[in-house]
Amino acid sequence: MRTLDWDEDKDALRLIDQTLLPREYKLIECKHVDELIAAIKSLKVRGAPALGAAGAFGVVLACTTAITKESVKQEVTKLKIARPTAINLSYGVNRAFNAALRGETRIEMKRYALAEANLLAEEDVAVNKKIGEYGSALLDDGDVVMTHCNAGRLACVDWGTALGVIRTAIANGKRIEVISCETRPLNQGSRLTTWELLQDKIPVTLITDSMSATVMRAGKVDKVIVGADRVVKEGVINKIGTYMHAVVANAHKIPFYVAAPLSSFDSDRSYKEVEIEERSPEELIYFGSEQIAPLDVNVYNPAFDFTPFELIEAVITEKGVVYPD
Amino acid sequence: MRTLDWDEDKDALRLIDQTLLPREYKLIECKHVDELIAAIKSLKVRGAPALGAAGAFGVVLACTTAITKESVKQEVTKLKIARPTAINLSYGVNRAFNAALRGETRIEMKRYALAEANLLAEEDVAVNKKIGEYGSALLDDGDVVMTHCNAGRLACVDWGTALGVIRTAIANGKRIEVISCETRPLNQGSRLTTWELLQDKIPVTLITDSMSATVMRAGKVDKVIVGADRVVKEGVINKIGTYMHAVVANAHKIPFYVAAPLSSFDSDRSYKEVEIEERSPEELIYFGSEQIAPLDVNVYNPAFDFTPFELIEAVITEKGVVYPD
Repeated sequence: MRTLDWDEDKDALRLIDQTLLPREYKLIECKHVDELIAAIKSLKVRGAPALGAAGAFGVVLACTTAITKESVKQEVTKLKIARPTAINLSYGVNRAFNAALRGETRIEMKRYALAEANLLAEEDVAVNKKIGEYGSALLDDGDVVMTHCNAGRLACVDWGTALGVIRTAIANGKRIEVISCETRPLNQGSRLTTWELLQDKIPVTLITDSMSATVMRAGKVDKVIVGADRVVKEGVINKIGTYMHAVVANAHKIPFYVAAPLSSFDSDRSYKEVEIEERSPEELIYFGSEQIAPLDVNVYNPAFDFTPFELIEAVITEKGVVYPD
Repeated sequence: MRTLDWDEDKDALRLIDQTLLPREYKLIECKHVDELIAAIKSLKVRGAPALGAAGAFGVVLACTTAITKESVKQEVTKLKIARPTAINLSYGVNRAFNAALRGETRIEMKRYALAEANLLAEEDVAVNKKIGEYGSALLDDGDVVMTHCNAGRLACVDWGTALGVIRTAIANGKRIEVISCETRPLNQGSRLTTWELLQDKIPVTLITDSMSATVMRAGKVDKVIVGADRVVKEGVINKIGTYMHAVVANAHKIPFYVAAPLSSFDSDRSYKEVEIEERSPEELIYFGSEQIAPLDVNVYNPAFDFTPFELIEAVITEKGVVYPD
């Protein structure tokens, strides 16, 4: 199963509810843009490339349910801002909406949007496979690769960016082990990365984010590979914690790689112009139903951080490996 | 209320059950060494200085319940190894047990042990106040101080080491704000540090451990102060994550201080000779009753790490500030 795909029979976007993993593997359907927006905001679907595809399929939903061209436009405008930091969401929406505009009737619009969304989804898989090939060449047999958050198949339509590199390296006969940082506060590392790697029987060890420097110091990490929510002029915006791992990798002279499709590039923009989403304090005050901090404590909870190119060995794209210097 | 004290009426060690905070403030009693060992292993009482006092009062418990001098010795030997990394536990046990040995009868032994344990507890508070005075001189009015784990009154008999420095600085008229790292996997930062600071109306902001580099880069941190479980020849052993914060503080030229009583010093020993406690994988697989990782995932869960003196600006003790270089 892909992370998300279009169900022709039900006229619905079908996706894995990632908030339930690893306890439960469940597919849900979105039939309206509002449902998709809620799924995006609650991280049922997340990851920059997956958000690109979700945005494109969201346009199909809008064409299915909205009455006029104008109301389709209103729907997709809401969808585009469901989460602000990854550029892929608006990239996917724009592509499918521009395709839809070629249609005259709503049925035509939907047909064009769906074709474009399916194309984007296929491209995403093909792009990840290429990223995998370019990245695989950077890995040596026996490497232990640390990763943060989930830049795997669950963050994409399939295969993955950072984890796609690992999958391709293994497919190419290299023995690779993974260290997965749990990725607070929402634990995409412990919930999603370990789950999808174990599904593929790829050896993985789970640590807290705060252990990364310690395992590096102990010589247990050969390379770090993470994904990206947006590649900007001066560096990479990615899940909170990425910058910290980059600083400690640098201090231990461990190469730090970013794997990202060109659709995540926004190279003319400075990181200072990008809105870093701040999420609810509840993410640090509660864990599920468990209260883990005083209810009235002040919380700072940015979902992403910025890592300058100085700390990044290379960015692995579908067109090749880009060395910042 | 102190974190722990002796209840004369009940012949019991009374302590705050720290696993229930911040949801519930509850005192529990230990009447047998085995109960105390269980409380120590489950972190109902934790923190190097508090473990020193708990060890000393544990000897009183042993003298209360054991029949012979030999069985007292067996009990305290078990107690001493309840947790391996902080040196204070065996320090406290040794002090009270050596005092007890001055007695002939069990009643005399208990009286000597209790006097010594009470003395150690009083000393701990006095020592922390002195650490506070020496440390306060290092803080400037308006400073934002980051800390990790809980080196506060809950980690000691009262006042605290790292948080004691902050308390004294505030008592001396300085305006200090605190950034508390949540401290995975057991969240002593979010559960205990924020709780005790809010009790004292000290401004505190909670972040995930992985945000420390980001808030440092944004210029939001003036100093870092942490406690220590053991100060060894080449540096400091403290809660996992300390080393990571030290590396990123160093990269951002932010002074990194350790506040620790001389009873935590084990200066002749190398960090390589100290057992770093590895705790259960369940601490990363579950959060309370919530499953957050696959049950069969491999987990690495060291409770402490080592930070070399090169990354430490100074160690604040009750005898003054020690600059490693």
